[in-house]
Amino acid sequence: MNSKSLVIKETDYAWSGVERKDYKTDGQNFKDIHRYTLLADEHPALNAQTRYFEMQPGGYSSLEYHRHPHSVIVIRGRGHVLLNNEINEISAFDVVYISPETIHQFHADEGEPLGFICIVDRYRDRPVVPSDAEIKRVIDSEEVLNKIKK
Amino acid sequence: MNSKSLVIKETDYAWSGVERKDYKTDGQNFKDIHRYTLLADEHPALNAQTRYFEMQPGGYSSLEYHRHPHSVIVIRGRGHVLLNNEINEISAFDVVYISPETIHQFHADEGEPLGFICIVDRYRDRPVVPSDAEIKRVIDSEEVLNKIKK
Repeated sequence: MNSKSLVIKETDYAWSGVERKDYKTDGQNFKDIHRYTLLADEHPALNAQTRYFEMQPGGYSSLEYHRHPHSVIVIRGRGHVLLNNEINEISAFDVVYISPETIHQFHADEGEPLGFICIVDRYRDRPVVPSDAEIKRVIDSEEVLNKIKK
Repeated sequence: MNSKSLVIKETDYAWSGVERKDYKTDGQNFKDIHRYTLLADEHPALNAQTRYFEMQPGGYSSLEYHRHPHSVIVIRGRGHVLLNNEINEISAFDVVYISPETIHQFHADEGEPLGFICIVDRYRDRPVVPSDAEIKRVIDSEEVLNKIKK
């Protein structure tokens, strides 16, 4: 527990005193990704959590959806994000809003890592890995279907 | 109102379709600062608001305190932040947690702008400009007192 104001210094996309962690999800549909939980429950006044996710070139996050929204700020590299039926190119310092129930997945480009800040509510539902039937119901773009990693 | 997922593209620390606004506070104790409200009330699912603040070289934000906390990620330049009795050097991509009631002020360095993302609760109290008596009660560092702009 720490309720005092503080500065967390960054060097090469690592933060002093913050543990680099493996990305963990219920599914196994992710590759070459790690995370830093920068500001979260150790500060009881915070209703939001601030995390940093980074995927190495060619890496990707889980394909998932959930009721809680994401506020994302890219701070490193390039890649794209699948948002239901859309593919969006992203690079530093683009902002992404992921609305409730949107099926989404982040991909780093082949040549560059992709790093972003992701803000979520402290109290939130667990992500769901969509079934093939759910994917088919929401997504009819062949281009998106070909991009999905699962 | 917009409840759809979206990407907001950035170019030179400006965001497509987002208005650059003047910084506004109850006091007049700020200089050379502007803001972009990136993600806020137009997305009803969001409990947090994501804003970008930038101060030009030598600029500074209001000296203030309030009950709600701030989660801050510096994304441009260099400067320092006053946190009660402490002066902290900051640069991209340092993270700052500002706890409730902390008297704080951001300053850009003379040679560089300072730009940061600041996350706040959607529903929050108004900032208070501390009186001289309040400043004296909290801050006894001569170094900090000399840095305060008001």
